[in-house]
Amino acid sequence: MVGLTASDAPIQAPTAKDILSVSPALARYTQDTLPDLWKRPGLSQRDRSLATVAVLIARNQTTELPAYLNRALDLGVKPSELSEVITHLAFYAGWGSAMPAAAVASDVFRVRSIGPDQLPPAKGELLPIEEASEKRRGAFVEASVGPVAPGVVQYTSEPLFHDLWLRPALSPRDRSLVTVSALIGTGQLGQLGAHLNRALDNGLTQAEASEMLTHLLFYAGLPNVFSAVPIAKDVFEKRKS
Amino acid sequence: MVGLTASDAPIQAPTAKDILSVSPALARYTQDTLPDLWKRPGLSQRDRSLATVAVLIARNQTTELPAYLNRALDLGVKPSELSEVITHLAFYAGWGSAMPAAAVASDVFRVRSIGPDQLPPAKGELLPIEEASEKRRGAFVEASVGPVAPGVVQYTSEPLFHDLWLRPALSPRDRSLVTVSALIGTGQLGQLGAHLNRALDNGLTQAEASEMLTHLLFYAGLPNVFSAVPIAKDVFEKRKS
Amino acid sequence: MVGLTASDAPIQAPTAKDILSVSPALARYTQDTLPDLWKRPGLSQRDRSLATVAVLIARNQTTELPAYLNRALDLGVKPSELSEVITHLAFYAGWGSAMPAAAVASDVFRVRSIGPDQLPPAKGELLPIEEASEKRRGAFVEASVGPVAPGVVQYTSEPLFHDLWLRPALSPRDRSLVTVSALIGTGQLGQLGAHLNRALDNGLTQAEASEMLTHLLFYAGLPNVFSAVPIAKDVFEKRKS
Repeated sequence: MVGLTASDAPIQAPTAKDILSVSPALARYTQDTLPDLWKRPGLSQRDRSLATVAVLIARNQTTELPAYLNRALDLGVKPSELSEVITHLAFYAGWGSAMPAAAVASDVFRVRSIGPDQLPPAKGELLPIEEASEKRRGAFVEASVGPVAPGVVQYTSEPLFHDLWLRPALSPRDRSLVTVSALIGTGQLGQLGAHLNRALDNGLTQAEASEMLTHLLFYAGLPNVFSAVPIAKDVFEKRKS
Repeated sequence: MVGLTASDAPIQAPTAKDILSVSPALARYTQDTLPDLWKRPGLSQRDRSLATVAVLIARNQTTELPAYLNRALDLGVKPSELSEVITHLAFYAGWGSAMPAAAVASDVFRVRSIGPDQLPPAKGELLPIEEASEKRRGAFVEASVGPVAPGVVQYTSEPLFHDLWLRPALSPRDRSLVTVSALIGTGQLGQLGAHLNRALDNGLTQAEASEMLTHLLFYAGLPNVFSAVPIAKDVFEKRKS
Repeated sequence: MVGLTASDAPIQAPTAKDILSVSPALARYTQDTLPDLWKRPGLSQRDRSLATVAVLIARNQTTELPAYLNRALDLGVKPSELSEVITHLAFYAGWGSAMPAAAVASDVFRVRSIGPDQLPPAKGELLPIEEASEKRRGAFVEASVGPVAPGVVQYTSEPLFHDLWLRPALSPRDRSLVTVSALIGTGQLGQLGAHLNRALDNGLTQAEASEMLTHLLFYAGLPNVFSAVPIAKDVFEKRKS
């Protein structure tokens, strides 16, 4: 390998012709089944694009990322929202996932002439904090994580729940949608229940969460969705009673 | 980063010289230990290549993928089989894993002059469905997944078990081998037991499954294999009684 | 996609300007929060660089890898140690993760004129084996893994615990640090307890392990760290009594 300093890009997304040259069946599913999926009721196409982008970023799947970032923008996701999605996932999927996403988005934004005026400020006004629930969250993390890793406790307050989650450029509901999608996409089941509950608290409906599972079948893969189902079932049932 | 529209490729696989320039030990293991692994009895080299390709695709590891796709073809895996492997993994590892694999395979097929006549049709005759076991599967999924995500239930029937799994260009046994390898490679243990059972039902022998675990040590990494072992043990024991 | 044989590279790491063009907030966290993290007491910057490199390699995140390999070298990690880290992770994260890492490192080493004299030999003198604990490990693996996959048992002795772990160019403590980081980074919780215990046996202090969890929040992502905490808690508590 040479030329690491030369300008380069990831694997180019295969064209329809490329896919056909490998698998006519995959071309068929891509051209028939996927568009049908996106048109299903229960979850808006805008939300589907957020969920898809979140999975691709969390899984470091940059090949399809330019196309889906563009699709998100075409569907009405604001550049400021995509900006926050990438920032959010730096914390929820790691810097090593966010940096290639930022590189790809930087190209997409440039091509679409999306300038700094369309981006959320580095620091600005925050949503009001929900004192009671944040106090409960803090106490829980202090008790469970504090004795093991006090640094983790500190960072979950600042910059996470006293900063990132309160940034107004992405709604708490959308942050939750993105977080849950990333968790399912990477098979991180341990934190799924808590974040699915938070998503429902933040305004994602149960019907939307259910349809998200269906949508993610195609982007997280069937097994990740099957493993997520019993956790979702448990969350749904406990909220009923 | 610029030039996203320019033609590009992933990280080039390191040459033997590249590896040597970083780690003579890694070069030794690659040149001595890996070839010995591939020659072990218990699992054919053809099957090893399918398992390896499945892990690379499911993990989005495109660097080594061209070499292993070529090795698979050299070992007698048919282009039509590789075509189905990629299509199969679109559902079992997600579109974001299948698309870069299709891009890489498209290049490999082009270089080898593998044309459309060697590919399975987009749609064609299917293997006969095993009514009884499919009824059991459907009822189980309906009961366990249906109340949470009815869309998931629908897609597991059509296009999955009433279409994809019945496509004759890849045997059910090989589909299972690929699925199990992808699950182990990505640490998705929740669905491993069910798919390992299905693999044994589909004709993979227990000795082959055992040797697959050994093979995957080098491609899925030791920890993923160690975590898979108790599940395999449980499956093996329950089938004995 | 064309040009797979042309010389190419992965997605270029985004420049500070690229990041700013997507998310001023992400630029802020990258420029303010990350440097603060690296300066925290409890874990040396050298150890942080090893942990970070291990996560990036295990997760196939090559975009940031050149920068962090260079940072590791700047912080005093020896080329021979990085060489062993990559070799170690071939076994613990799979060949498909080690090969792109070797390709990237080969470029980094070349640019820094790191020659073969600075690399550990392919084969050489080994650290003395700890007979008693190795006997315990061997017996445990024989009993638990042997009935399912005898090949796995064989390879864990040779080349793993009778060769790789005894290579003197990377201390057992650092091998453990790298292994634990890779496990947390990829969410492979099943083997985390055993390897964290081994890390503490090998000289990593509990305070360092705790701060590693904090550090990895930013590279493995918060959810992976949160899922690791209860396992670390259990290990810490059991060693106290």
